Amino acid sequence: DLRQRSVAVPVAESPAPASPAHKPYVHITEKPFTLQNWHQHINWLNVTLIIVIPVVGCTWAVFTPLCRKTALWAFLYYYMTGISITGGYHRLWAHRAYSARLPLKIFFAAFGGGAVEGSIRWWSAGHRVHHRYTDTDRDPYNVRRGLLYSHIGWMVFVKNPKKAGRVDISDLNTDPIVKWQHRNYVLVLAVMGFLFPMAVAGLGWGDWKGGLIWAGVVRLTVVHHATFCVNSLAHWIGDQPFDDRRSPRDHVLTALVTFGEGYHNFHHEFPSDYRNAIKWYQYDPTKWLIWIFKKVGLASDLQTFSQNAIEQGIVQQRQKKLDKWRSRLNWGVPLELLPVMEFEDFQAQSKERALVLIAGVVHDVTNFIEGHPGGKALIQSGIGKDATAIFNGGVYDHSNAAHNLLSTMRVGVIRGGMEVEVWKMAQRENKDSTIKLDSEKNSIVRAGSQA
Amino acid sequence: DLRQRSVAVPVAESPAPASPAHKPYVHITEKPFTLQNWHQHINWLNVTLIIVIPVVGCTWAVFTPLCRKTALWAFLYYYMTGISITGGYHRLWAHRAYSARLPLKIFFAAFGGGAVEGSIRWWSAGHRVHHRYTDTDRDPYNVRRGLLYSHIGWMVFVKNPKKAGRVDISDLNTDPIVKWQHRNYVLVLAVMGFLFPMAVAGLGWGDWKGGLIWAGVVRLTVVHHATFCVNSLAHWIGDQPFDDRRSPRDHVLTALVTFGEGYHNFHHEFPSDYRNAIKWYQYDPTKWLIWIFKKVGLASDLQTFSQNAIEQGIVQQRQKKLDKWRSRLNWGVPLELLPVMEFEDFQAQSKERALVLIAGVVHDVTNFIEGHPGGKALIQSGIGKDATAIFNGGVYDHSNAAHNLLSTMRVGVIRGGMEVEVWKMAQRENKDSTIKLDSEKNSIVRAGSQA
Ligand code: HEM
Ligand code: HEM
Ligand SMILES: [Fe+2]
Ligand SMILES: [Fe+2]
Ligand SMILES: [Fe+2]
Ligand SMILES: [Fe+2]
Repeated sequence: DLRQRSVAVPVAESPAPASPAHKPYVHITEKPFTLQNWHQHINWLNVTLIIVIPVVGCTWAVFTPLCRKTALWAFLYYYMTGISITGGYHRLWAHRAYSARLPLKIFFAAFGGGAVEGSIRWWSAGHRVHHRYTDTDRDPYNVRRGLLYSHIGWMVFVKNPKKAGRVDISDLNTDPIVKWQHRNYVLVLAVMGFLFPMAVAGLGWGDWKGGLIWAGVVRLTVVHHATFCVNSLAHWIGDQPFDDRRSPRDHVLTALVTFGEGYHNFHHEFPSDYRNAIKWYQYDPTKWLIWIFKKVGLASDLQTFSQNAIEQGIVQQRQKKLDKWRSRLNWGVPLELLPVMEFEDFQAQSKERALVLIAGVVHDVTNFIEGHPGGKALIQSGIGKDATAIFNGGVYDHSNAAHNLLSTMRVGVIRGGMEVEVWKMAQRENKDSTIKLDSEKNSIVRAGSQA
Repeated sequence: DLRQRSVAVPVAESPAPASPAHKPYVHITEKPFTLQNWHQHINWLNVTLIIVIPVVGCTWAVFTPLCRKTALWAFLYYYMTGISITGGYHRLWAHRAYSARLPLKIFFAAFGGGAVEGSIRWWSAGHRVHHRYTDTDRDPYNVRRGLLYSHIGWMVFVKNPKKAGRVDISDLNTDPIVKWQHRNYVLVLAVMGFLFPMAVAGLGWGDWKGGLIWAGVVRLTVVHHATFCVNSLAHWIGDQPFDDRRSPRDHVLTALVTFGEGYHNFHHEFPSDYRNAIKWYQYDPTKWLIWIFKKVGLASDLQTFSQNAIEQGIVQQRQKKLDKWRSRLNWGVPLELLPVMEFEDFQAQSKERALVLIAGVVHDVTNFIEGHPGGKALIQSGIGKDATAIFNGGVYDHSNAAHNLLSTMRVGVIRGGMEVEVWKMAQRENKDSTIKLDSEKNSIVRAGSQA
């Protein structure tokens, strides 16, 4: 019974009943693989549906001619079943990103069933667990266990019910379409997965066998792997514009194969947004379809997160990247780690090496004199002096780049800071100030120094 | 005499000689335009070279057949003269971004002269003034006076020598090539601007007239406007990845017409870097040429700013943009502006509206219950309670987006902060803590509460 495949339906009681003998009960997943027990580790129902049938069908397809009409029909049916998973199973039922009228629900329940990925109830519950426990042991398609595991491995092996996560699926349990589809899932699967695509081709243009193989099995194999990519590829390749603490990623390639579900970093941050792509030029046909359904009255209550919340995430993530980048660069020795020098020492040492005092900090510009864009003479004019004013507009208002470069040349700080030293020197030289130009760059004629 | 056109050569004395009569001397630029004096406002030499000759020549060109060979020659000569301005006049002489051997200097002096943009000495001095006083009154091609002014207007009108800027050109004054070219500039201009391109076409394939008009005048008109674009367009359109406090901008279009000088925001920050573009895929043929000259031994000492300094600028500029963006978003009422509530008030008010206490802050989630991605029931479970632990992993470890959204819902802070209130409530309810799950999400059985 398919219902037993559920990994996600809330588990009411502790899942390990005490065994009658005193030997404690050990679940199969807690035992190692052996020659005797390996078959118990395998979920044979899943293996049949996602490996055996596809492999047999695709092998058969090699010997089954593909006529033009069947090819078109298979492609169309691929799109219909695939988008019923993304637009129906995923965005409508798992995330309640919008509300749908009955005919649309029936459409999604039927064609989504034809994708042969389990019932809406099972699929959505598992998917909610995935969102709630992303990247942890309880995440059914935990990508931390490897790309292949998150793509298909998770369905191949029996799961440990102790590791199941709990989620609220009361809304699914009261939805009549979901309930009906879950109860009759074997029928839905048989009819929509195989018989319907076969019958369309058979009754339509007499290609019964092509219909079954191409529009049935080959098509469902493609839909499988397309949608499985959301669990694997979308947690593996791409950017993380909104948050990088978990695995989901945005990538256009993933979007292309998943009917728009590839903007998965956005989706995990804003799961109940009916969009996965927020820019008009990004490929999200599921979003476009939901939007059209709204226009024709089949969908309503389209949920979106505010632009503000979305931009907050982008800003924070960019800030994080910028902080990382910044920390990799050299911003000069922090002021508090610099040795403290007396102004007199600074002047004395300036005779040995090219020291320039700017804003209370001593800089060794020896290796920069040759390369100074303003010429050797100008930079040399600052050696052994407080060049604060000269550097900051007195002679030239240096660029931001010059200030950055300057800070990498720090070698000391002057005791008492710049002001004190300017004053000291002025005292000694019997001048008021070292500033010789005003802010308009006209020279200042001081009292006593007129011609 | 061309030397008199200099706006940039350091002015040793105040430029306004006292007039013999008592009437104070007023420079023409300080008088308004009138019907009587307008011709005194015009720099007729410049107008002849950059407007009259080009207009006459280009009109003539309409009636001058252009043969294939002359077209190719004109294009080649356009490139040679243009790149002599960018690689020679600009990067070599104005910025000393590298050193060149004598043959290369002669090449640049000759072909750069053929671009008819003045002598190296005049051009470089003016350009240094432009860098030193960018966007101010003393900037000879100050873009703040308009795009047309910075493109060509600045050469059309007589300049006020009081507004001239001073720069150090001692290196130019001692360079024999620069000195020779400046002294003989009229000759250089006549030969390289007109006679040489004419002679090549005339002696080569008999097209004397085509040579003069197309490879001479039309070509020099194109070179003019291409290089003028560095002063206009490069201060007008494009991005500012390094600093945005002055006008220079980076744009690929400007780079395309200016032999790579369009990465002008970089250039103004790092003027003595021999590169204008730093990425290999950006169009900077002048840089490529200098690099080739180095390989063949004609150039050396290629100056570059450190990658560290360059990235510092980018990081700071991105930070600035990010800060602007951040300040436009709503981050919720700052904590210090929120009203302080008693825990009892919070509980009482929770009966009227959906208040949730998280980390000492009270949030009104009334309008979010319906839209809560985790379902109505779960969010409602936090109403009237300290949901700090529940929100932060106790039940679900919310995304960054959820935290952002939460802060926009702030309505108050609890007196004494969260811990006090948790404790208060625990006292009242005779429990130790509201935390019911441990970090592994297993429920915590407390002393006295075992079954
Ligand atoms: C203390 C006396 C100094 C004077 C008078 C002076 C003057 C000048 C002038 C006039 C320019 C403009 C050159 C042009 O763009 O054509 C310039 C550029 C520059 N200077 Fe200095 N400079 C001094 C010290 C320094 C020091 C200590 C540094 C060390 C970082 C420095 C770094 C630069 C840089 C990176 C530029 C090119 C970027 C810009 O335009 O700001 N200068 N300087
Ligand atoms: C206080 C009790 C709350 C509980 C128990 C709770 C529980 C949950 C759960 C289980 C999910 C995962 C749903 C999924 O991804 O399928 C979730 C998602 C979310 N919740 Fe809550 N929630 C609570 C309160 C809030 C509040 C007050 C906010 C207000 C901002 C909020 C905002 C969100 C958002 C934005 C998401 C989707 C993004 C994400 O995965 O973090 N929740 N919540
Ligand atoms: Fe996911
Ligand atoms: Fe999802
Ligand atoms: Fe410029
Ligand atoms: Fe320049």
